Amino acid sequence: MKLILAVVQDKDVNRLQDALSENEFKTTKLASSGGFLKEGNTTLMIGVDDEYVDQALEVIRDNCSQREQMVAPISPMGGNADSYIPKPVKVEVGGATVFVLPVEAFHHF
Amino acid sequence: MKLILAVVQDKDVNRLQDALSENEFKTTKLASSGGFLKEGNTTLMIGVDDEYVDQALEVIRDNCSQREQMVAPISPMGGNADSYIPKPVKVEVGGATVFVLPVEAFHHF
Amino acid sequence: MKLILAVVQDKDVNRLQDALSENEFKTTKLASSGGFLKEGNTTLMIGVDDEYVDQALEVIRDNCSQREQMVAPISPMGGNADSYIPKPVKVEVGGATVFVLPVEAFHHF
Ligand code: NI
Ligand code: NI
Ligand code: NI
Repeated sequence: MKLILAVVQDKDVNRLQDALSENEFKTTKLASSGGFLKEGNTTLMIGVDDEYVDQALEVIRDNCSQREQMVAPISPMGGNADSYIPKPVKVEVGGATVFVLPVEAFHHF
Repeated sequence: MKLILAVVQDKDVNRLQDALSENEFKTTKLASSGGFLKEGNTTLMIGVDDEYVDQALEVIRDNCSQREQMVAPISPMGGNADSYIPKPVKVEVGGATVFVLPVEAFHHF
Repeated sequence: MKLILAVVQDKDVNRLQDALSENEFKTTKLASSGGFLKEGNTTLMIGVDDEYVDQALEVIRDNCSQREQMVAPISPMGGNADSYIPKPVKVEVGGATVFVLPVEAFHHF
């Protein structure tokens, strides 16, 4: 058994938890912030039997990979709205930092 | 030394922390939610010398095992209170998911 | 690679995160409370390549060691302010409880 700790962006966490759940993986969500990823993030704990580690990692990669997104910039306050045409800009979103830890024993009571 | 990560229900966590403390185990509480257990839950980190792991697990089992509890259902809003006799129902409460992790080094400063 | 889990006092966590960041260590902050340390605390997760573990521990020790601080006690409510001269008292602050965990695999997507 392994314990997977996955730090993912808040915006990806619901989709990831749904996808993990569909693959019969159970997750616990730890409130976390800052650091590995720039925006708000969440740490998921996932207990996984050895033979399913690759499958779990695949689900994480499929749902949380870093990717580019077009974002409409916020209009400058007090700007001249008529002459201002906001251009969407590309930003990096997503990303996951994943630790796979050995587990010596697992119990549930 | 081992690091025990115990995911337990919120309703059991105070009693468990008291019991662990009486047994000289120190705990740190991580805010957690969802997943392994259906209701609100908390993850406790417990650093334990190898020879006390079984004792710590026993304290967790004694205080958090899944069990049945009779719960009085909430009266339906706007129902006819005179004719409505709520029957207590059995629900599963408690439960703990416990990972015992190897620790390579432990320090306190 | 190792995963360092450091439980430190809230009052030390910003300085510690700055110092770790200056040393190129990335951290994720988990909301935590109680237990290993008496006051409010925070748990930092720090993924570190093996050869940098000692450096990371040194940064933690330098920024979070338990130390004495002089604190002005709060005046008793309703006391006679003229005759009451509060003496600063020494209190223990800081301290860090640090687990170094082996990591079997590390990924980022
Ligand atoms: Ni079972
Ligand atoms: Ni000591
Ligand atoms: Ni990279």
